[in-house]
Order: sequence, then structure tokens, then C-alpha cells
Amino acid sequence: MYEHLAVVGATGAVGRIALDLIAERNLPFKTIKFLSSKRSAGSKITFKGQTYTVEEMTPESFNGVELVIGSTPDETARDFAPWATQRGALVVDESGYWRMNPKVPLVVPEVNPDDIHKAEIGIISSPNCSTTQMVVALKPLHDAARVTRVVVSTYQATSGAGVQGQDDLIAGARAHLAGDTHDYKAFKHPIAFNLIPQIGSPKHEGYTSEEMKMVWETHKILGDDTIKICPTCIRVPVSNCHSESILVETERKLSVAEARELFSSFPGITVVDDLAAGVYPMPQQCSGKDDVFIGRIREDLSSPNGITFWCVSDNLRKGAATNAVQIAELLIGSRATV
Amino acid sequence: MYEHLAVVGATGAVGRIALDLIAERNLPFKTIKFLSSKRSAGSKITFKGQTYTVEEMTPESFNGVELVIGSTPDETARDFAPWATQRGALVVDESGYWRMNPKVPLVVPEVNPDDIHKAEIGIISSPNCSTTQMVVALKPLHDAARVTRVVVSTYQATSGAGVQGQDDLIAGARAHLAGDTHDYKAFKHPIAFNLIPQIGSPKHEGYTSEEMKMVWETHKILGDDTIKICPTCIRVPVSNCHSESILVETERKLSVAEARELFSSFPGITVVDDLAAGVYPMPQQCSGKDDVFIGRIREDLSSPNGITFWCVSDNLRKGAATNAVQIAELLIGSRATV
Repeated sequence: MYEHLAVVGATGAVGRIALDLIAERNLPFKTIKFLSSKRSAGSKITFKGQTYTVEEMTPESFNGVELVIGSTPDETARDFAPWATQRGALVVDESGYWRMNPKVPLVVPEVNPDDIHKAEIGIISSPNCSTTQMVVALKPLHDAARVTRVVVSTYQATSGAGVQGQDDLIAGARAHLAGDTHDYKAFKHPIAFNLIPQIGSPKHEGYTSEEMKMVWETHKILGDDTIKICPTCIRVPVSNCHSESILVETERKLSVAEARELFSSFPGITVVDDLAAGVYPMPQQCSGKDDVFIGRIREDLSSPNGITFWCVSDNLRKGAATNAVQIAELLIGSRATV
Repeated sequence: MYEHLAVVGATGAVGRIALDLIAERNLPFKTIKFLSSKRSAGSKITFKGQTYTVEEMTPESFNGVELVIGSTPDETARDFAPWATQRGALVVDESGYWRMNPKVPLVVPEVNPDDIHKAEIGIISSPNCSTTQMVVALKPLHDAARVTRVVVSTYQATSGAGVQGQDDLIAGARAHLAGDTHDYKAFKHPIAFNLIPQIGSPKHEGYTSEEMKMVWETHKILGDDTIKICPTCIRVPVSNCHSESILVETERKLSVAEARELFSSFPGITVVDDLAAGVYPMPQQCSGKDDVFIGRIREDLSSPNGITFWCVSDNLRKGAATNAVQIAELLIGSRATV
């Protein structure tokens, strides 16, 4: 059924991790090919001990392909997805382009796995990184007590802006320490030893596109647009892993003990929470891991039915590559390694 | 009345800024002396073109002193303040030790200037840095529409942990970039290219001492303990200036235009808010300035009467030295330069 795979954007930051995960998690397939834009075509990729040449993506390059995992910019996904679906392939797309299309399900396997069956035009989207980790955290609370409101402030790593974002942080930090300036490519303002309170472009009533993704994508994934969400998205000088300060109000009051138990027993969540011992999730410690890490769980001091907590996850993994590969696993029906 | 000054802790990060401000703002006095712990005594300070020798602080060193500005750790303030007040001096103290004492007013000159007259035991406290900038932002909204609830997530600079905190960030960043490790002195965990979701010690129902300061000190300064406040305090790899993502609910609905106007016309606040042009407060740009900077002002998408915004201020200046010197100015009655 899904025996002939293609990975599009295999040479990017997320694409490379997707390859590692396909190998590590032993995703079964008969053939695999690696596609990219013209610029990266011809480069070599080592995968499971074999060397592959990255092919330039054309409509014809999808001939015979049954399942595509795409890690590309929005505009690239707009173009290649129809090429693939017209040839009968199913596309698991990590870009933002198709996510809010009503014919495209937006899937986080721990949260709404059954939505994979709603791929009306042959495309399944994986959510934005800042949304994915949040909906994983919200889901057990929503199922148990119905989430009515979310206030979230993010602390987002530079890897969210791609390899260039990570390089910019390192180069900017080196320059700053040497008393020099750095010409940032991925950011409008210096990010080393600084904060930028804008991710994405102005979108809706003073909110950025990144912030509105956290509202609209969460509504779509949870299938509930009555949840009120106020997001603030901030870029911080951290290389990898997004962190989020999340306050949740629920219809039924949850105790801290109950929230902790709900988090602990939910797949894909690891609770790391012992303030007295200085134990909580931090980005450097969560980088390279697939789970959503939650700590600092406590009762909201400002509402009768609120819980607040700190949530960290690797935005390149669960926020992108891991989630896409998990969707592919769901499709293939081999969830043993999830 | 307050013609004979002493500055305690004049060699610390905040104390040095206090000296600069006393000079810049032309605080009037007849004599000034500089006091410190035994360790720093004997060191030289240049102030208004003259060289002074820092004296070791003893009870007798406060003889003849009328006004003291103290920038010391809590334990030092516990000891020296009574030495000074017993000799008739008034103490403006930046430490945390006296703040919640019911006989000690906690003053932010833009917010509750009249409280300087309530110094029952000769001590006036200046609030914690994360509280000061927030109450300046809350005050105009509270006066106009009554604040009922605050949800705040902070992004706090390493200078909040003193000179050692700033040195740790730089040394840690250098080590990280060189592939080495750094033995952090001011932090429990690495802070360079990382986040630490703990400031202070565990204090109250899972909240840290820093977080509870934002609740209790805000109540005291605004004279209103009915305001519900949920704080999350996070250390970020920024050298100086604390940033805060603040959501405020008010009894009467405020429009964004009204909130912006209230902020703009309030003393000590500078509005920097044009998302489309990429204009908003950032810590590197606010460092060395005395104001509280506010941007990203928008309607809360999650409540009927909410406003959310981004607030940045120099924690060593308005969060400490500037506020203390402003209190001294109020006392002396020379507010011309505020």
C-alpha cells in the first residue's frame, strides 16, 4: 500500500532528522527516493548504510511513489503536493501551506489519529511546531475536563527559522562576544543575547501569523473552535527546542495531582517536575528527544479552574520530523515503535 | 533635611548605577559617603570628578547621615538599616528584606508616591525588578478600568543575578561556543543558549519566591489585594533588561486605542509599538534607559475584557537603581529631573 516512499526536502534541517527517524524507527518500505529543489539536487545522502543521490523534484519524479514526506517551505509544498497526489501518492506535509485547507486533515498522532482517514485530496498536514507540543499537552486535560481557555507565551528557538536561524545565533553570539556586529540573515533584529517579540508576519488584530497558527491549528486539531486562546510568540537565543508557559482553564476543576496524572499517563508526554530539587524541562536537555516535556505544574492563582505549567519540546523532532514520521507510521499501520 | 547622604553597596552592579544617576540627575546634597562590606572597603570611587574611598559599614559609619540608599543583599539590609534608622536616617532600601514589612512602604514613584509618608520605622523599600516594571504598566489601566486579573510570563536577564550572573552568561556562552563546559556560579543549570524555569526558591504552592514577589508586592504597591495574579518567572540568556508577556483583564473593557493612550500619557512609560514595521521593545535596545517600554499591545483573544502586551525595562535601572534614586528625589522634593 505505502511501499514506495519519497522524502522531499531531505537535505534541510528537518528533512535530515526525518531520515534518521525513518531509519531508527524502522519504517517499512520497498523503495525510497530523496527529492529536493534544483539547488540541492545531485548531493549525496547516506541512509541505512547506502548512498543515494538526491534527485531534482519534478512532476515525473513522483511516478510510482505511494507515500511522500515533505519538509519544505510553503511555496514548494504548494507546487509539489499536487504533482504527487495526481500520481496517486499520499503526501504527509510539514509545511504551513495546506494546514488550514478544509479538505486536509491536520494530525498529531497522540491527539487525533483517526483524522488520517479524512485526507480528501491526498494530503495530510503536520502542524506548526509551537502548536504541536501545546496540543499534546492540552489533549489529556481537554478529554478529562474540557479546556475552555488557554493563555500561552512561547520561548522559541532559532532552529525554528531553519539551519540559517541556528547559524545566525552562533555567528551573532561569536560576533557579540568579540565586540563585533553580525549581519543577520534569518532575523530582522539581533537575536544573540536578545529577544525578538515577533515570529512571522502581522496577521490578525495585532497578532502575528505564528500566533494565529497556535489559535487556528489548535481549534482544527482538537475539533473545537470554542476554546479561547491568547498566544504571544517570542524568539529567544536558544538553538533548539521551543518552550511554552501555558495557562489552561477547564470547565471542571482539575487538581495539580490530577493534571500530573493525566499528563503522565498520556503517550508522548514525559513529566519532569520537582521544583525543590531544581528539576524541570530545559531546552538543552530536551534537544534530540521526541517527547513533549512538562514541568512546573501548579494551580493558577488567578482563576478558580486553572492549571499552569511549563512545556518544552524539540521543535525539529516532535514539532516537525517526528510528528510527520509518526503520521507515516499510522498510515502504514506499524505503530509498534511509537 | 536630607543633605547628608550615604550609599551602601556602592561597588555592586546596582550601586554603581545609583551613583551615576545621583550625578546625572543632580540629586542635591551637602555630603555623601560610600559604604560597603569589609570585602570592598578601601576601594576607590570616582564621583562627580572627585575620588572617594569606600568605607566599611559599621553602626557608627551612619553617624550624621540623613538619607541612605542601599543596594545590598537581603541579609546586609537586615543589619545595616537599623544602624542607620537608630541614628535618625531614612533608608531607601533596594533589597527584598523589608519590602513586605507592614511598617515599611513599598514605593514606585509613578505609582504610589504618597506612600513615602508612611515610613513608620524609617525605611522605604524599592520593589523587586520584575514587579516594578509590571506595576508601572498596570497602574494607568487600573486607574482607568480596574485591573481584576493578571497573567504574566517573564523573560529575565542574567543581570538580575548580579555581576556574577552577567559574567556567568558571557563565560558560559564562550565555553559553549568553544565546545567546553563552564562551571556556573550564579545559576543551578547552564543558562547560555538555554532557559531556566526557576528564579528564587520554592515558596508557595509550586510557585517560586520570585513569582510570589510579583503577586504580593503588586498587591501592596497598588493597595489592592483583590487583583488575581498568575506569574511564571523564567531566566533567559540575555545580559540585561527583563521582558514580560502580560495579559490584563479589567472590570471595564478597554480598547487597544484606549490602552495605548493610557500607556503613552503615563510618566515613565514609552510606547514602542508598530508590528508592521518590526518595531517593539527588545532588551538590547532598552538597556541603559530608565523607562518602561511597552509594545505588541492587542486585545486578548481569550476574554471579553482583556488587553495583552509586551513590556521591557532595564532591571538594574528602573528595576532597582533608578527607582531608588527617584524615591530619594521625592523625599528631597526635587522631582524636576524625573
